[in-house]
Amino acid sequence: MKTVNIGLIGGGFMGRTHSNAYRKVNAFFKLGYRPVLKTFCDVNESKAKTFAENWGYESHETDWRKLLARKDIDLIDICVPNMAHREIAIAAAEAGKMLICEKPLAINTAEAEQMVSAVEKAKVANMVMFNYRRVPAITLARQLVDEGRIGRPFHYRATYLQDWTISTDVPQGGDALWRLDAKVAGSGVTGDLLAHSIDTAEWLNGPIQRVTAATETFIKQRKHVESGKVEEVKIDDACMFLAIFANGSMGTFESTRYARGRKNFNTFELNGEAGSVYFDLEDPQYLQYFKYKDPKSGDKTEGHLTGWQKIHVTNAEHPYMDKWWVPGCTIGYEHTFINALADFFTGLETGKPAQPDFRCGLRTQKVCDAVLESARTGKWIDIA
Amino acid sequence: MKTVNIGLIGGGFMGRTHSNAYRKVNAFFKLGYRPVLKTFCDVNESKAKTFAENWGYESHETDWRKLLARKDIDLIDICVPNMAHREIAIAAAEAGKMLICEKPLAINTAEAEQMVSAVEKAKVANMVMFNYRRVPAITLARQLVDEGRIGRPFHYRATYLQDWTISTDVPQGGDALWRLDAKVAGSGVTGDLLAHSIDTAEWLNGPIQRVTAATETFIKQRKHVESGKVEEVKIDDACMFLAIFANGSMGTFESTRYARGRKNFNTFELNGEAGSVYFDLEDPQYLQYFKYKDPKSGDKTEGHLTGWQKIHVTNAEHPYMDKWWVPGCTIGYEHTFINALADFFTGLETGKPAQPDFRCGLRTQKVCDAVLESARTGKWIDIA
Amino acid sequence: MKTVNIGLIGGGFMGRTHSNAYRKVNAFFKLGYRPVLKTFCDVNESKAKTFAENWGYESHETDWRKLLARKDIDLIDICVPNMAHREIAIAAAEAGKMLICEKPLAINTAEAEQMVSAVEKAKVANMVMFNYRRVPAITLARQLVDEGRIGRPFHYRATYLQDWTISTDVPQGGDALWRLDAKVAGSGVTGDLLAHSIDTAEWLNGPIQRVTAATETFIKQRKHVESGKVEEVKIDDACMFLAIFANGSMGTFESTRYARGRKNFNTFELNGEAGSVYFDLEDPQYLQYFKYKDPKSGDKTEGHLTGWQKIHVTNAEHPYMDKWWVPGCTIGYEHTFINALADFFTGLETGKPAQPDFRCGLRTQKVCDAVLESARTGKWIDIA
Amino acid sequence: MKTVNIGLIGGGFMGRTHSNAYRKVNAFFKLGYRPVLKTFCDVNESKAKTFAENWGYESHETDWRKLLARKDIDLIDICVPNMAHREIAIAAAEAGKMLICEKPLAINTAEAEQMVSAVEKAKVANMVMFNYRRVPAITLARQLVDEGRIGRPFHYRATYLQDWTISTDVPQGGDALWRLDAKVAGSGVTGDLLAHSIDTAEWLNGPIQRVTAATETFIKQRKHVESGKVEEVKIDDACMFLAIFANGSMGTFESTRYARGRKNFNTFELNGEAGSVYFDLEDPQYLQYFKYKDPKSGDKTEGHLTGWQKIHVTNAEHPYMDKWWVPGCTIGYEHTFINALADFFTGLETGKPAQPDFRCGLRTQKVCDAVLESARTGKWIDIA
Repeated sequence: MKTVNIGLIGGGFMGRTHSNAYRKVNAFFKLGYRPVLKTFCDVNESKAKTFAENWGYESHETDWRKLLARKDIDLIDICVPNMAHREIAIAAAEAGKMLICEKPLAINTAEAEQMVSAVEKAKVANMVMFNYRRVPAITLARQLVDEGRIGRPFHYRATYLQDWTISTDVPQGGDALWRLDAKVAGSGVTGDLLAHSIDTAEWLNGPIQRVTAATETFIKQRKHVESGKVEEVKIDDACMFLAIFANGSMGTFESTRYARGRKNFNTFELNGEAGSVYFDLEDPQYLQYFKYKDPKSGDKTEGHLTGWQKIHVTNAEHPYMDKWWVPGCTIGYEHTFINALADFFTGLETGKPAQPDFRCGLRTQKVCDAVLESARTGKWIDIA
Repeated sequence: MKTVNIGLIGGGFMGRTHSNAYRKVNAFFKLGYRPVLKTFCDVNESKAKTFAENWGYESHETDWRKLLARKDIDLIDICVPNMAHREIAIAAAEAGKMLICEKPLAINTAEAEQMVSAVEKAKVANMVMFNYRRVPAITLARQLVDEGRIGRPFHYRATYLQDWTISTDVPQGGDALWRLDAKVAGSGVTGDLLAHSIDTAEWLNGPIQRVTAATETFIKQRKHVESGKVEEVKIDDACMFLAIFANGSMGTFESTRYARGRKNFNTFELNGEAGSVYFDLEDPQYLQYFKYKDPKSGDKTEGHLTGWQKIHVTNAEHPYMDKWWVPGCTIGYEHTFINALADFFTGLETGKPAQPDFRCGLRTQKVCDAVLESARTGKWIDIA
Repeated sequence: MKTVNIGLIGGGFMGRTHSNAYRKVNAFFKLGYRPVLKTFCDVNESKAKTFAENWGYESHETDWRKLLARKDIDLIDICVPNMAHREIAIAAAEAGKMLICEKPLAINTAEAEQMVSAVEKAKVANMVMFNYRRVPAITLARQLVDEGRIGRPFHYRATYLQDWTISTDVPQGGDALWRLDAKVAGSGVTGDLLAHSIDTAEWLNGPIQRVTAATETFIKQRKHVESGKVEEVKIDDACMFLAIFANGSMGTFESTRYARGRKNFNTFELNGEAGSVYFDLEDPQYLQYFKYKDPKSGDKTEGHLTGWQKIHVTNAEHPYMDKWWVPGCTIGYEHTFINALADFFTGLETGKPAQPDFRCGLRTQKVCDAVLESARTGKWIDIA
Repeated sequence: MKTVNIGLIGGGFMGRTHSNAYRKVNAFFKLGYRPVLKTFCDVNESKAKTFAENWGYESHETDWRKLLARKDIDLIDICVPNMAHREIAIAAAEAGKMLICEKPLAINTAEAEQMVSAVEKAKVANMVMFNYRRVPAITLARQLVDEGRIGRPFHYRATYLQDWTISTDVPQGGDALWRLDAKVAGSGVTGDLLAHSIDTAEWLNGPIQRVTAATETFIKQRKHVESGKVEEVKIDDACMFLAIFANGSMGTFESTRYARGRKNFNTFELNGEAGSVYFDLEDPQYLQYFKYKDPKSGDKTEGHLTGWQKIHVTNAEHPYMDKWWVPGCTIGYEHTFINALADFFTGLETGKPAQPDFRCGLRTQKVCDAVLESARTGKWIDIA
């Protein structure tokens, strides 16, 4: 078995999910590669030390550039806030490191294009962590599309709703709340949540061609953690858009952190001539499926038997699930990262790179940019 | 079209549901018979008058014996409390009247047997109003059984849970609360709620052979509306029993008026080798169906596609639904009575009597009696 | 009790629902007025006769103008296809008749304005049959808004999804399928389904100020029932739009007849600072409510107790439900019309006209027109 | 930090879940103890080696007695089939080792009593792995009971339904299917599934006093993996029982592996005067709660606001959840074991032993035995 020495940068929420995933992946998946938690890096020395110890890294570091210089680091995993992705990624690629980067790939299309150029020039393995593709129920949705069970698509609708920023007491900035600070996050829900929705949508239903959008910032000012002053909030608290897909189907998308009662309500529904699927991340163990026509036999479901089916996606026949426990036993949020890493290492072995790579992540960036441009201009925007 | 002149006795809740059903049935079903609301009877003159006017009866009466003497009454509909069923039914049969009787047929097996003898001797059409058989979703469950979609049955489980008598402030007796008065109701939840569960169970899964049961009266004393005094409560507030069906499957049954939060939670689930069905009366528009094996092709559902299906029972292909509105439009509680009357009148026309007739209702009575006997004796009781 | 003599025009689906409602309303609601089914009118003599007999009308008619001339007709109920609403309504108003008109009020704003002028000039009682306001769960949603349980609104999202026109075998035109014929229906899902969504939305969340929209016709040609020829389909099969409400909240709306598996999926969700509500017409007995803050006490729900609540809207405390059966017993689609008529007749009695009247229906028309204009032009459209 | 050296015996399904839990617990919980995966033991040398490597044990062993002799082993974790629990546990206690034992504690009460004596005499820390107590939603249910939110209890109902043994093709015995072999498992669903239901029930609602039960073996003969011959099946495929709790409430319990469509349907509902809770292990992220009366204020929920609440048990305020990810992110099956270990090690630190210890596990054994005795004799059985 080959080892892959990991240098992970950034000890926030995503640093935790990735670290956990590296530690677990080989106990569940038979792989040709084994990640080794070599070094953890964070600008804060004490935090770096504690984090490294907690997760079992061999060492820690405070300057990410040092990781690039080290020969014993094979892969750089970028878990820092969005605005810092580009610089690290390009430097790491130039240093010949493999790259795993949290989503969104960058804060805009221009940056993302530079990152794609860098990894493609350096020919290093690379992946953007759109972990929700690896929710077994979402992977199953893709499988049903591939099996012809949806047929000609008519509609796609997605929401990603949360409610954690409604209070004016929530500040912006700092380690915990950089997602509310436009300087660090680039955008608000568009980059944070809609990026997921868009990645899933294009994976299931192909490219989005045109959009019209609106955004809103409901709370206009928040105290900034670093400055200690009340500052204007420049991110989008909410974003909604209409889309036309290249295949002619219609899409509605909405994301917000102001939907009281919705915590992680990342849903999609795809309606086609032969069938439909529905998913909700708050109930991740289910894919709902409406079967109208069987793609092989062409048989239509008898009229007295039609109904939405709740598939409890825990059978051995379901994506990834033969690697986990027994039928009926659920997995959770963290497993999407582990499944993703398994795919990544399998890609190394087979030579068929796991998706979404940086080029694929660039697509999502383009749609996000078009959405934000439409919200600014009030016009439909075509996506190149 | 032939008319059937109705004399309905009893102006409580059931008097209302039956009256409404007579008024509506011909506007929706093409039938060879048309009921005419001839006379309404209640011992209370003023109530009788008001009720008759409200529902469009041609006249009213305070003595039910007068109805039997009238030649222009074809059918007696018994909507009075349980303890009065027997006497009216036998006299009406002897007077040659058709009979529709609210459930439970009687307060015990002995009474029910006399009633069966009377109608069979008189050869008059007769039906017990187990209206829930006519919830389209329940009729559909029976259809799935008949189509072989359940296969060899293993388990049946039924609950009928309510919560309206939890408070000690609720009195017993009187027009509104006779169901809490053992003298009038015969029993508590066993006759009121479990009778429904048993009728449905035997309709779907065949005869119950043996039972073991327990009952409880949680609030031991309640003020009696008529005496004005606090009296012992003699009904069963709750009843649970285990059953062995003749076909070898196992059953659990439970009924109570002390299940906080359950209002009309009449549920059943039948598990067989080929499939399962689940129903809940609080969501009466659905039948849930798990398809494992197709009875015609013998094909098993592919492992990645298995799941419980929520059939929204409003298609034209569903029982009774072609008579109502359009797909997706729900019907409600009252329609079960209308569907039942349509079946009754169709039975008159075709000569194939609608079920459950009195003889069938006697079965339920026997099971109820066995349940109560088991609760008293602590023993398993066989049902003849 | 005063009688109101009804002349109803149009024997399609809506003619049935209205006729049924007139027949039932007084048996359940204590009202000062009683409708009398005086005359039914349809251009087809034989159909008119059969329909009148079936529903108990005293007579039938084939020329609606004759109804207006009759002194014994107090109220004209318009159940004909959309394109015929205007002429009948204006003539009826001029003849001094009260008016109940099926939705949408007209096929465009200009026509609707003429109708409003006519009824206001004639000072006749008038109502548009947006029956879904009278689903008890939807009325309850409005009550929760009025009680301050939603608080500052952030988001509204509505869908109205069906799937019955997906096949190319479905023709357009004729008695059954005029909704697919733009000449008769005016528009497709916008007037048929979105009109409901818009009426509900503005009732719950106030006026819509601006919209951007897209429409699609998935099946471009269908055989026309009357001509027998394949003709272009000019209605919108699907329509989606974004909205900004006057109160600053954001809205997404979508309607289609191409959402496989959705039969009558008329849903809405309103998210506010204090709470949220969700409704789905396929489960009309429920209102889902998320309570965050109590409007009276100001107390916030404890963090370990927050969750969406499924309110089974069948308690006596719920709108309209004390008139029907007992808690836990559902009502269905048809009852929305009966509740609406009860409101209408109560309005006559109290002098506070039931809503939505024609002026209110005109609002919906304006939003529909703006939506269609935006779909044509690709621009955001302000609503006057 | 103190280390606890683990010797784990048995490399089946439970060996995996426990090993995973030891590896993860310290990364998420701040504890005074850290488990070290010292030695894994399995009779099969090659399996022992592979398992040890996969999970990161320092060494492996094939004779469990050798573990007891080693001074560097602090805790023996018993993950072997039921019939082998007793001997290992007693020997380990005598050797002064701490003990964690998979459920059920033993195959009958007599054995369990010996095991309790042994650990109590040796004064070694001990716990039975009833991991479902540590589903956050179930722990929350217990919290609601403690907060007085259920009030006087009336009813408890539990099911544990699966469907994986329906086919006659499934053999009995061997590593994978010892649960079907009475010699190894002791009993069928009673010890395997009902043991969980009983442990949860008594934890939430206090001791069970009396039971009446029935069991069934639907498939009478199965090929035995070891003998290669068709042998009689002696386990119970299904078991149902009625219970009376010491607090006067009534219980129904049912378990089977023949409920087509139910995979891990471990449900319970507790109904009390003040409120109710419902849980289903297939949807483990939810606790459903019906609030009728607030225990502090005594206020009753207003009648128009009552409804079952789906609490998405992922808030920081929920049991264990502050240790995991962020609100809205689910955990899964494996986390119940990790939470349990955290409780165990916390118990070591605080001196308040985590529950259920062996003595507590003995209770469950007594109820199981009474259930099986009742099924044999047809009588109600009192539990000492």
